[in-house]
Amino acid sequence: MSRPQPLSRSAFQVFVPITTRWMDNDVYGHVNNVTYYSYFDTAVNTYLIDQGALNIEDGAVIGLVVETGCQYFEPVSFPENIEVGFRVAHLGNSSVRYELAVFRQGASSAAAQGHFIHVYVDRQTRRPVALPEVFRSVLEPLS
Amino acid sequence: MSRPQPLSRSAFQVFVPITTRWMDNDVYGHVNNVTYYSYFDTAVNTYLIDQGALNIEDGAVIGLVVETGCQYFEPVSFPENIEVGFRVAHLGNSSVRYELAVFRQGASSAAAQGHFIHVYVDRQTRRPVALPEVFRSVLEPLS
Amino acid sequence: MSRPQPLSRSAFQVFVPITTRWMDNDVYGHVNNVTYYSYFDTAVNTYLIDQGALNIEDGAVIGLVVETGCQYFEPVSFPENIEVGFRVAHLGNSSVRYELAVFRQGASSAAAQGHFIHVYVDRQTRRPVALPEVFRSVLEPLS
Amino acid sequence: MSRPQPLSRSAFQVFVPITTRWMDNDVYGHVNNVTYYSYFDTAVNTYLIDQGALNIEDGAVIGLVVETGCQYFEPVSFPENIEVGFRVAHLGNSSVRYELAVFRQGASSAAAQGHFIHVYVDRQTRRPVALPEVFRSVLEPLS
Repeated sequence: MSRPQPLSRSAFQVFVPITTRWMDNDVYGHVNNVTYYSYFDTAVNTYLIDQGALNIEDGAVIGLVVETGCQYFEPVSFPENIEVGFRVAHLGNSSVRYELAVFRQGASSAAAQGHFIHVYVDRQTRRPVALPEVFRSVLEPLS
Repeated sequence: MSRPQPLSRSAFQVFVPITTRWMDNDVYGHVNNVTYYSYFDTAVNTYLIDQGALNIEDGAVIGLVVETGCQYFEPVSFPENIEVGFRVAHLGNSSVRYELAVFRQGASSAAAQGHFIHVYVDRQTRRPVALPEVFRSVLEPLS
Repeated sequence: MSRPQPLSRSAFQVFVPITTRWMDNDVYGHVNNVTYYSYFDTAVNTYLIDQGALNIEDGAVIGLVVETGCQYFEPVSFPENIEVGFRVAHLGNSSVRYELAVFRQGASSAAAQGHFIHVYVDRQTRRPVALPEVFRSVLEPLS
Repeated sequence: MSRPQPLSRSAFQVFVPITTRWMDNDVYGHVNNVTYYSYFDTAVNTYLIDQGALNIEDGAVIGLVVETGCQYFEPVSFPENIEVGFRVAHLGNSSVRYELAVFRQGASSAAAQGHFIHVYVDRQTRRPVALPEVFRSVLEPLS
């Protein structure tokens, strides 16, 4: 299996700063592999909310995650702070593939990188819907 | 992209029961995508510890995660309980690829399935080592 | 300050088994102090849901936490499993004080114990309401 | 029982900014009561590490938590950011009582406040030790 190379910051358009937490470190002294996905979730949803596309409480359309993946290149540890960069790799009719990376403060190449696929659904029926215009308009610049 | 089909219980040799928690559900009322990786981590390490291979506190060899992935087929929600099934898909010199799935109580096909790759390293130097015999002996039956 | 003594199992009426997780252990090798509160939340809500009192998704009345506290007597570590015992210490008009303890498998006295106070509110207005009869009927036997 | 009043920012000397996360919100749409303790842990340990007192990996002395408590006054929700203020309420021979509060961005009074008690112990024996001078010197200014 060919292992991907760490991407550099220039591969990403949007960066969301995240503060690490005491509990992020596991018994081996580094951020646990699980926690990176929490960084990913947080970065994309922060962007979508800040841009006025996603309304967690009342919006008619919400994003459900159908696939995720991550490669880990070097450890990150509390209390260092990080930035998550992301881009839109595929903008489908009702799904979006996000590619993301975790950068340690001041680092130019990714400590970890991954992806997740959101399917946008009607909040009530949970059936896929065409991506609303407000989502499309804030995601297209990242693709 | 071709989406994988949910595996059945018969694809797995070991099952670890896990109780879900209030906090596993996110604002949309289902277990958050991140949490599945915590189930995976827990299942494999429980097995390795119970079998006497892994010693978290003092063992000379520990497993570091270099890659993870998951596909989500249907939602799981607290307070239902789950079982994680897993198998060894590749047993390398110092790395192991685990394939895992989350089964809802009584369900025959997976609600979610994924993998993670452990590289076994020396606890002090964090350099890869040949998989110790005790690990090999408890993992070979699962491959 | 006078430190409370660990309570025994006989002080509690209901016990909810919980499986610990890899991520529960922090860098010092024991379950992090934060995680005990997740055990507490899980135990009480599991009981309320199983008894048909609480409906997370649609119920008109939900419980909001206004105060919590915990004392820690001895460490607990993944992968050991635990039981959370609890009782109702005060059943008010719209609030309930739960007292809880974490027991290690086979242990007769608590590894940690604490409390939390739920105020029951209307889901929409988030204003306190008189505890519905269905809650009262499942909580009175524990008080 | 008399309920405490929310403290104002002026009651605290040190403030640590923390970014909330998607997973902090529970099914009711607000930061779960458990998560506040993770903010507390993170704030105090960040300070102790940044000031050169605590060395998570190699330090001879570590802090174990023996008691925690929190009151919740108003909800906080992802994606808003917060600051944790804290002060030293009691500086004992080997224990320290921290009092902490969570402030929403721009808010002058606490959304939640609480305390925790650290007992400082020898990392190996886990027996209490007299607080080392380096801890005392960074904590006395906060008491």
